[in-house]
Amino acid sequence: MKTKTTFYHAGCPVCASAEQNIAQALDRSRFDLEIVHLGQNKARLVEAERAGVKSVPALVLGGQVFHINFGADLGVLR
Amino acid sequence: MKTKTTFYHAGCPVCASAEQNIAQALDRSRFDLEIVHLGQNKARLVEAERAGVKSVPALVLGGQVFHINFGADLGVLR
Repeated sequence: MKTKTTFYHAGCPVCASAEQNIAQALDRSRFDLEIVHLGQNKARLVEAERAGVKSVPALVLGGQVFHINFGADLGVLR
Repeated sequence: MKTKTTFYHAGCPVCASAEQNIAQALDRSRFDLEIVHLGQNKARLVEAERAGVKSVPALVLGGQVFHINFGADLGVLR
C-alpha cells in the first residue's frame, strides 16, 4: 500500500521550485502524491493547519510536516 | 543518467526526520543520493556553503537548495 503524501503550495515561485524538484522527485511506486493549491482551494486550509502546516511550500508525509524553504505564511492565504 | 542530489545534515532530530521521510522517499531510479553529516565531515562545509546551504537539514537537487524545516545554522557546525 502506498503512503499518502500531500504537497501544499500557493503558486509562488518558491512553491513551484519545491514542487518540481522535491515533490516530483518522490518515488511514486511508494507514495501517492496529492498537490493542493491553497490559494485556489481555501477549503483545504483548515486541514493543512491541523496537519501543522505553518507556511508553504510544505509536504505532509508520514504524519509529519516538512516546510521546504519559505514562500508564504498560511495566514496570508485566508 | 541519474541526477545527483546531496542531503546535508548534522545528526539532529529534525535532520533525522527529514532524512527518513524526505531523502529516503526520493525515487532512487532517477536520483543518486549522497548523505553528508556536516558535524562529522567538516571538510564538506565549504562545498555546502557554496551550494547555498544556510542551515541543516538541506537537500541540494538540480543545483537548487531546499532547506527542510530547521535543525541548525551552518555557522554552529564550524
